[in-house]
Amino acid sequence: MKPLGPIPAGFEARDGVLVVGGRPVTQWVEEAGGTPLFLYAADRLRAQVARLRAALPPRLALHYAVKANPFVPLLELMAGLVDGFDIASGGELAITAKAGIDPRLVSFAGPGKRDAELEAAIVAGVTLNLESENEARRALALGERLGVVPRLAIRVNPDFDLKGSGMKMGGGAKPFGLDAERVPALAREIAAAGAEWRGFHIFAGSQALDAAAIAETQGQTLELAARLADECGLPLVHCNLGGGFGIPYFPGEAPLDLDFVGARLAERFERLPDVLQDTAFCIELGRYLVGELGVYLTRVVDRKVSHGEVFLITDGGMHHQLAASGNFGTVVRRNYPSAIATRFGAEVEEEASIVGCLCTPLDKLADKGGFPRAEVGDLVAVFCAGAYGASASPMAFLGQGPALELLV
Amino acid sequence: MKPLGPIPAGFEARDGVLVVGGRPVTQWVEEAGGTPLFLYAADRLRAQVARLRAALPPRLALHYAVKANPFVPLLELMAGLVDGFDIASGGELAITAKAGIDPRLVSFAGPGKRDAELEAAIVAGVTLNLESENEARRALALGERLGVVPRLAIRVNPDFDLKGSGMKMGGGAKPFGLDAERVPALAREIAAAGAEWRGFHIFAGSQALDAAAIAETQGQTLELAARLADECGLPLVHCNLGGGFGIPYFPGEAPLDLDFVGARLAERFERLPDVLQDTAFCIELGRYLVGELGVYLTRVVDRKVSHGEVFLITDGGMHHQLAASGNFGTVVRRNYPSAIATRFGAEVEEEASIVGCLCTPLDKLADKGGFPRAEVGDLVAVFCAGAYGASASPMAFLGQGPALELLV
Repeated sequence: MKPLGPIPAGFEARDGVLVVGGRPVTQWVEEAGGTPLFLYAADRLRAQVARLRAALPPRLALHYAVKANPFVPLLELMAGLVDGFDIASGGELAITAKAGIDPRLVSFAGPGKRDAELEAAIVAGVTLNLESENEARRALALGERLGVVPRLAIRVNPDFDLKGSGMKMGGGAKPFGLDAERVPALAREIAAAGAEWRGFHIFAGSQALDAAAIAETQGQTLELAARLADECGLPLVHCNLGGGFGIPYFPGEAPLDLDFVGARLAERFERLPDVLQDTAFCIELGRYLVGELGVYLTRVVDRKVSHGEVFLITDGGMHHQLAASGNFGTVVRRNYPSAIATRFGAEVEEEASIVGCLCTPLDKLADKGGFPRAEVGDLVAVFCAGAYGASASPMAFLGQGPALELLV
Repeated sequence: MKPLGPIPAGFEARDGVLVVGGRPVTQWVEEAGGTPLFLYAADRLRAQVARLRAALPPRLALHYAVKANPFVPLLELMAGLVDGFDIASGGELAITAKAGIDPRLVSFAGPGKRDAELEAAIVAGVTLNLESENEARRALALGERLGVVPRLAIRVNPDFDLKGSGMKMGGGAKPFGLDAERVPALAREIAAAGAEWRGFHIFAGSQALDAAAIAETQGQTLELAARLADECGLPLVHCNLGGGFGIPYFPGEAPLDLDFVGARLAERFERLPDVLQDTAFCIELGRYLVGELGVYLTRVVDRKVSHGEVFLITDGGMHHQLAASGNFGTVVRRNYPSAIATRFGAEVEEEASIVGCLCTPLDKLADKGGFPRAEVGDLVAVFCAGAYGASASPMAFLGQGPALELLV
């Protein structure tokens, strides 16, 4: 039997059925009209934001990285909870507009911004996190042509990375941002051109569970911001310290010690150098805000025994859960947290693999996990499905199409 | 410098620009209205079918696995070239209907068929490749309720796999098909229930480049089919021998020796056992038919140097080319064949990485390859983009949306 990832705390059963947002998931499936279905729990989002606000220094604004989950009802809820939004494309700009989000609270990072995307962002009053000198000059020229003062920040490629992070965004040659030594000259050029100077965006990595590593990176980020602000000779109005807060997906992983991160950052805020005294700071979180509030539900269509091994074949799969299938930035496949949602909390009775309905051996949601015995018609829950699920999976693969989504 | 995969034979330049379907790709981009753009070359499809027909025994029918590329204009062209189609979902059934394909030429395999999908297939006259006893009984019950005689074949989980295949579909415990020893009883049950008996579907693996391994697997498949047909006591009307023909994607890979495979299969057809004398055989190819006819074109939006490394940042990426980015069933990332399409055939001048516009380090199309020096505005071509590209990638990721597609 292979271990399963840890189910996030706080999920309970009623009459053996997993409860999300106060009701058994069977009821939500009925209400949504079937499976596969992503459920996003509003109460868990509110609790997570409250936890972050309590643990982190009040001076630190909280931004949401839309890429983690761009479901419009979730964004509408988020708008009342966080202080800003970070987007990565013109498509995400349109999605935030649909959710009624004030574009002046939005910043846009992304290494390959097209002119049409720059133009839409400038017109809307979105802050551009510039990724290169070339992009800066295109933005300035567009602003001039449009008669709009562009709001410009510089994304800095830091010389350090976030240790233990699932994805390194800094430390060496990268397609993201400007190498630090080129930042001051561009900042002065931007300011001289009459743009609204919006400071730095420094993102060193993501999905880290080591609080000490995150605290160390935040310290390095503040030092880098101070050094660059000094060299620029401009007041640092704003600094996005990046994200990096991870959630446990796999066996043996433990939640991030958020209080430690918050306490260390508060200490650092107490003794900021002069050049950062008036800086507005934010962090940008995606997965940490929404990852654990999502549950992916799929129904068992067949139960098969092949050469003595049990396969539960579902109506969902990797076309909605690419990361859970092990095909999204993972080298060795490990099991996400999953359970039989209609026998939630029941004892383990057998070893079974949960697979999707796709005609490929890649389509695996749980490999040889321990579960209560499930039958055709039972619901399977994959947890930690709130981030990089529906929108980050190949939904059209094998003619399947998107899953249902419901904010509850 | 890291090596790039081999560009399929026959691509040429005109005035330095890659030619596809008789015209420079710059013209197709203009006609399509921009990039990113998948071009599918009809002349290459016709040539590939002709090559297959010439190399393989005339008795062997040629089926197309729609999952490889479900683009409707491509399916319409395919309908005049091949003898049958294999689908993997109700969604693909709807796509083949849109392309005007006769449903009696279609067979449907897939481990998690829902009742609605079974019903649509039975009504249309599609052959179902049954994946389990449970599915067989559901299909029989639906046929009875609908007053339609279902056309039923059994997918067999073979006891052998295709050696060296990229994806093993047989050999041991699998969610696909019935273990061989359970096949005869179900076949007799199906025939006794009055269904139209359509034989076996035996698929041992895919993406193999070793002709000897494919020939050996085809031999094993024929032996298994003969043994099971004997045990069933039913004439074997039809047998799908699976696919498995691979194309070279990566450095050092060489094309499959198709003539060898064809010659060996012809020999085997000469000395078939009595029980297979009247059997209609087919193979089911997806990637081998369409993989090399596709070129993915994306435009360089930025050219950056970070810590001495060159990055060409394009307006495309892994949201259209998941496999080329190394995130689709690959353990170690290797480079697909790619080139600067607007400097095609020019000498290598520098080492550069070609990345997409997504804000993630996973979004890499070519890692440290050797290219002529490219500038903003140049077009990049990723080859072998005809199969498992547009439909098998997370197109909605980061708000990007689908690529354009054009059959030329």
